[in-house]
Order: sequence, then structure tokens, then C-alpha cells
Amino acid sequence: MADEHIHPNETQRIEAFSDGVFAIAITLLIIEIGVPHVTGEQSLSTALRDLWPSYFAYVLSFVTIGIYWANHHSLFRLFVRTDHLFLMLNVFFLMAIAFLPFPTAVLGEYLDNPSQRDTAVRLYALGLLLPAFGWLCIWLYANARGLVDERLAPEYVRFLTGQYLLSNALYAGALLLSFLEAGVALAIVVGLTLLYLLPPRRPRYVG
Amino acid sequence: MADEHIHPNETQRIEAFSDGVFAIAITLLIIEIGVPHVTGEQSLSTALRDLWPSYFAYVLSFVTIGIYWANHHSLFRLFVRTDHLFLMLNVFFLMAIAFLPFPTAVLGEYLDNPSQRDTAVRLYALGLLLPAFGWLCIWLYANARGLVDERLAPEYVRFLTGQYLLSNALYAGALLLSFLEAGVALAIVVGLTLLYLLPPRRPRYVG
Amino acid sequence: MADEHIHPNETQRIEAFSDGVFAIAITLLIIEIGVPHVTGEQSLSTALRDLWPSYFAYVLSFVTIGIYWANHHSLFRLFVRTDHLFLMLNVFFLMAIAFLPFPTAVLGEYLDNPSQRDTAVRLYALGLLLPAFGWLCIWLYANARGLVDERLAPEYVRFLTGQYLLSNALYAGALLLSFLEAGVALAIVVGLTLLYLLPPRRPRYVG
Amino acid sequence: MADEHIHPNETQRIEAFSDGVFAIAITLLIIEIGVPHVTGEQSLSTALRDLWPSYFAYVLSFVTIGIYWANHHSLFRLFVRTDHLFLMLNVFFLMAIAFLPFPTAVLGEYLDNPSQRDTAVRLYALGLLLPAFGWLCIWLYANARGLVDERLAPEYVRFLTGQYLLSNALYAGALLLSFLEAGVALAIVVGLTLLYLLPPRRPRYVG
Repeated sequence: MADEHIHPNETQRIEAFSDGVFAIAITLLIIEIGVPHVTGEQSLSTALRDLWPSYFAYVLSFVTIGIYWANHHSLFRLFVRTDHLFLMLNVFFLMAIAFLPFPTAVLGEYLDNPSQRDTAVRLYALGLLLPAFGWLCIWLYANARGLVDERLAPEYVRFLTGQYLLSNALYAGALLLSFLEAGVALAIVVGLTLLYLLPPRRPRYVG
Repeated sequence: MADEHIHPNETQRIEAFSDGVFAIAITLLIIEIGVPHVTGEQSLSTALRDLWPSYFAYVLSFVTIGIYWANHHSLFRLFVRTDHLFLMLNVFFLMAIAFLPFPTAVLGEYLDNPSQRDTAVRLYALGLLLPAFGWLCIWLYANARGLVDERLAPEYVRFLTGQYLLSNALYAGALLLSFLEAGVALAIVVGLTLLYLLPPRRPRYVG
Repeated sequence: MADEHIHPNETQRIEAFSDGVFAIAITLLIIEIGVPHVTGEQSLSTALRDLWPSYFAYVLSFVTIGIYWANHHSLFRLFVRTDHLFLMLNVFFLMAIAFLPFPTAVLGEYLDNPSQRDTAVRLYALGLLLPAFGWLCIWLYANARGLVDERLAPEYVRFLTGQYLLSNALYAGALLLSFLEAGVALAIVVGLTLLYLLPPRRPRYVG
Repeated sequence: MADEHIHPNETQRIEAFSDGVFAIAITLLIIEIGVPHVTGEQSLSTALRDLWPSYFAYVLSFVTIGIYWANHHSLFRLFVRTDHLFLMLNVFFLMAIAFLPFPTAVLGEYLDNPSQRDTAVRLYALGLLLPAFGWLCIWLYANARGLVDERLAPEYVRFLTGQYLLSNALYAGALLLSFLEAGVALAIVVGLTLLYLLPPRRPRYVG
């Protein structure tokens, strides 16, 4: 097809645009925490303390987007070609990243509300599954179309494929579990984020 | 005129600034979806489901801005010179891009309101016509002033001119139609966006 | 002093950061236009039309920041050195640029309110005087400390100094006038913006 | 460990992402100042004047983030290597920077409210301690892992360590003091910011 030609600097420009979206989405998270409005007899201290679900959601989403940013960069160094559909898949992945402030705000608002908490956790688990799924699509497409550096060791490629499939399975599992036990689902989501804080495996090359 | 001199890196810096505006406008879209406020007996699930027009408008505008970003980059590679008015036309084009979160928010708020839906679709069609028109102006001006790479095949230049004129005609048609049949107008707008997801034709050069 | 040493790439990085602030401030303007909330019997069309002061303020501020962006770039190409105070003056200038969405929102809210319009125009004129003053300070400081390219023709340097002093005088005049005749003050501000749309004079060098 | 390998351009890309977060956080500050809503008999002038705590908080936080931006750049020029944990520490530092609009908004809202002012100052002092602490962690970690340029004079390294420890002690002191005398705590915080406006000491190298 006509759109498969090579642009040596193309991945750099996609990275710059993606970095912009990452930086903005991560910094917008704070906008969703509204200043509490207290009147005369109420305590601002208490009101600020009652915002703990918002702080928790802020930290969780900030770290998640931060990790995606670091991983996006590592991954894009493995790509040597791009095409139009690859570009569009990246736009869809960024759409999922830019969506994250919304489930974050909902989680912050309803985490301490017993009757709505489960719904908020469900939306948040969905909000994390979406970028993980977009990421997997980018990776599978890039492999199918030969956009990945050919000198990469096949076992490293298989390792990444396995890792991305597992992430999707775990986020999907957390989403399903959130219909039964939202608390456990949230724990899985937090655990996965902590796991991703560990250093990623270095790329291995053939020969 | 005095402002016609050549800056080899000028288009790069315009692209960097434009990319910034694209990245911010695309990421701000989520800010317009407010967290639903439900009280005791109401269901957050239902409230989140009732936001479907906002999700629809978010996806449509995100994809639209994403496509403009990709096309802006392709187009600017064809320019070899800039001048002051070209710069100002690009500022006006970016003004139309940065305006999109507003009609998007209005569409998200009123799409499921039978008595106001038509007005919301009309504003949205206008919101899409404006950047298409700004884009056409940039292209026609660049051609008239010889800012476009001279090695480009004349039939490719004519092809792009025709394509941009057609886009404008279709968005203008959708805008006019929205006074009669807002549903059909919206379908045209969605159809155009889906069409733009297809890979663009590659530039052809003389010789 | 210790901080006067030469960094060849320093102006590039200041420009990149400044471009970021310009791009964000210009794109945030739209956030200040709230979606109108109409109920059953009211018309969304009318509500959207009643927002005309907001659209007017949006266009005026967008063009103003766009022109500052273009000029910032032209000016910074004339600087060959930076120092710490220069950096801090640029931060103060950016603080004035980043402040503009606030007077813009106030103007959009109160321009069609006869009893508050004058105050809104006054704040807006002040909002435009601040970056013009910051700009003048950067220029005068850079000249006094020898940060400007020495090959620049002295008459060109004098021309710019005169132009920046005149801008400040006109914005200050508009601010003072806004206490007597806010309508005329706004007309001056709009006129100045239109003037700045004209191409700037090209730098002239010695020899 | 596997993640200790050298990336010559790695610090550049971290800087670009960090600059994005700085630029967005600094520009978002204005969003937190809401347009005052006055009705017929009230005065917009008075309402705008009553927002002085918000303007004060805006300027203070803008200058603080601006100084961090300038210092971040100076510091990152001293690093010659990065690793995964270094990257994550920078993400945590940026999380503290991106959090600043929240305590700024709270300070702007409650500084002129005698019964809540102390709490607002306390949150603001905490908001400034967090990035100072993140900064210290980055510096100590980079030194411990040999990520810093080895040609740097040991006394300069010790000078920076001392300076960062002192900053943390002073912000922590202001935080503690804010439980007793919020006014004095705020004065310390303002004084520290003014001190940081002074030019930093230039790096000294061995030999």
C-alpha cells in the first residue's frame, strides 16, 4: 500500500506530540480536585482531610501516566518505520490516556461513598484497561507490519507480547471483579501500578 | 515586500508551536466532561451512562484534531518558505482548532435534548467548518505566494486543492442541512471524519 | 558577575519553554467560555448568541498572544547571550502572558453589562499593558547588558526601542482613558492589535 | 543491575517532558482564579480588588515554578547518566510541582479568612516542601549512583547538597511554624522565594 514508505524522523515527531499529550494529561489531573468551600463554623482542615480519595486518585493516575510516558519512549525506540494506521492507533492510545482525568475525578469523588464506590472503581478499572489495550494493539500491529527493528531478539519480542497480554488480562480481570468485589479490584489495580514501578527488562538484540 | 525572505527552520518552529496547540486542545476536551453529582438514592451508573453524548462528542473531536495534527505535519513538509501573513493565517487556523472544545461541550450537553439538539449540531458543524476553511486559506495563500515546494507535481497540487475545496463544501453543506435535518447533518460530519481516517495520498514530485 | 557567561543554546531552551507557555495560555482561553445552561422553554440559540462578548474577547486575546509568540521568536533571534536576571525577566513576562485568560474571561462576562463594562475594560487594558511592559524591560535590560547581537544596526535598535516605548504609552493611555471613556479605550486596544497584525520591520545589520 | 546502562540523550528527553509539565503547571495557575459573579447593585471593581489573595498566591507560585524550571535545567546539565529509579524520582518530583496549583488556589481562597487562614498557609508550606524534598532525593540518589559528572569539583557538590538540605529544613520549619504563627511561616516562604531569585552559584570543575 501507498502509505508504507519510510520516514526516518517520523517516530521522533510522534513521540514529541505524544509527550505533549502525556505532559498535559498528567498536569490536568490536579484541576479535577476542587477547592473545598467551607463557611464560618466549618473547618477547612477537616474539609481538606476529607479529600483523601482525591489525593489517592491523583497519585495513582499520575504514577500510571508517568510510567506510560517512560514506557512509550522505550517502546518507540524499537520502531524503525511508521505508517498511517500506526499513527491512527497511536492517536487512539493517546485518546485513552487523555481520558484518564475523568475516571480519576469520579474515583476521587465517590471512593468514600459506600453506595457508589463500586461504580467508581469499575469506571477506573475500565479507564486503565483502555490504554493497556491501545498499547497492545500498537505493538501487535507494529509486529504484523514489520515496523519493529529486525535486529531485536525474537525471545525479547515474545516476552513483550506476553507482558502486554498479561497486563490486559489483569486489567480486564480487575474490571470483571469490580462487579463482585470492588475493593479487591482496586487492590489489583494498585498492585499492578506498583509492579510497573520496577525497572523494565532491557531490549536484547540478535547476535 | 520586506517579509518574504527565507527562513529554513521557520516551518519547524511553526510546527512545534502548532503541535503544542494541537496537543493541548486535544487533551483539554476531557475537562469539559463534568463529574456527575448524584445523591443518596440516585445511581452513579445511570448518571455515567447518561453522559453518552459527551463520550461521543469527545471521541469525534479527539479523532478530528488528531487527523488535523497528522495532516498539518504532512502539509508543512511541502512548504519551503514562510512569510508574516502565512504565520498569521496559521494563527487563525489554530484559533479554530483551539475553539473546538466549546462546540464539543455544547454537543455533549444537548445532543440528547430534543428541543436544543439541532442548535448544538449546527454549532458543531460550524466548529468543524472553521478549521477546514482556515486550512484552505493557508493552502491557497501558500500556492499564490510560491511558498510551496516547486518540485511538487502540478496534478498533486490540483488534487489537494480539490480535496480541500470539497471538504469545505461538505462541512458547509452539513451546516446548511443542520437547519433542516440535524440528524443527517451530524451523520455527514461523522462520515467525513471516518473518511479522513483513511491514509492520505502520498505527495508526487515532478520528474 | 558570576552569572554572565555565554550559553550558546540557552536562548533556544528559553524559547522552547516560552513557546510552551504561549501555546497553553492561548489554548486555555476557550476553557473560560462556559457552556450555557438553558432549560425547557429557553432557546440555546439565543443563549449562544448572547455569548458574543466572550467570542469577541476570545478572538482578541488569541490574536494578541499569537502576535506575542511570533514577535518573541523574532526578538530572541537577536539575543546572543543570556544571564540569570534576563531569565527571570522572561519569567515575569510569561507571568503576564499566562495572566491574560483572566481579564479575557472578565471582559467576556461583563462587556454587555452597562454598569460593570468600564471596570472590565480597565482590567483588560491593564492585562495588555503588563506583557507590553515586561517586553520593554527585557529589551532595555538586554541592551544595557550587551546581550544583543552587536552586528545589529544602531538605527534598528533605536527603532525597536521607540516602538516598544510607544506600545507601552498607548496601552497606558488606554488604561487611563478607560476611567473616562471605556468604549474609546477598548477601540484603541483593538486598533493596536490590528496594527500588530501587519508584518514587522526586518532586522538590519551593520555593513 | 540491568537498568544502569548509559543513554547519552536520555537527560534531554526527561528535560523536555519536565519542561512540558513546568509550562503547563505554571500556566494552569490562572485557571484557579474564578471570574467573580456580581449582580446589579454590587461593584465589579470591589470584587476584583477582593481577589488580592488570589493574585498574591498566583505571583508567588508562578515565580516558584519558574525558579524550579530554571534550576531543573542547570542541575540536569550536571547529570551524565540516568537509570530507571532516577526517572521515577523525577516523576515524583513533577507530581509535587503539578500539585502546586491546588495549595495555591486554597491559599488564594482563604488567606483573608481569619478562621481558616492558618490551615491554608499550612497546606501551602507543605506544597512547597514536597518539591524541595523530591529535588533533594533526586540529587542524593544521583550522587549515590554516580550519575553526576565526575569532573565536578567536590566542594561544589558539597555546596549543592548543603543548599538543598537547608531549603528542606527551612520549608519544614515554615510548615511546623505554621501551626503556631501562620503569618511568620508565610513570611519565611516568601523570603525563601525572593532569595531564590538571586543568581545561582556557577558549577566549578576539577582542575
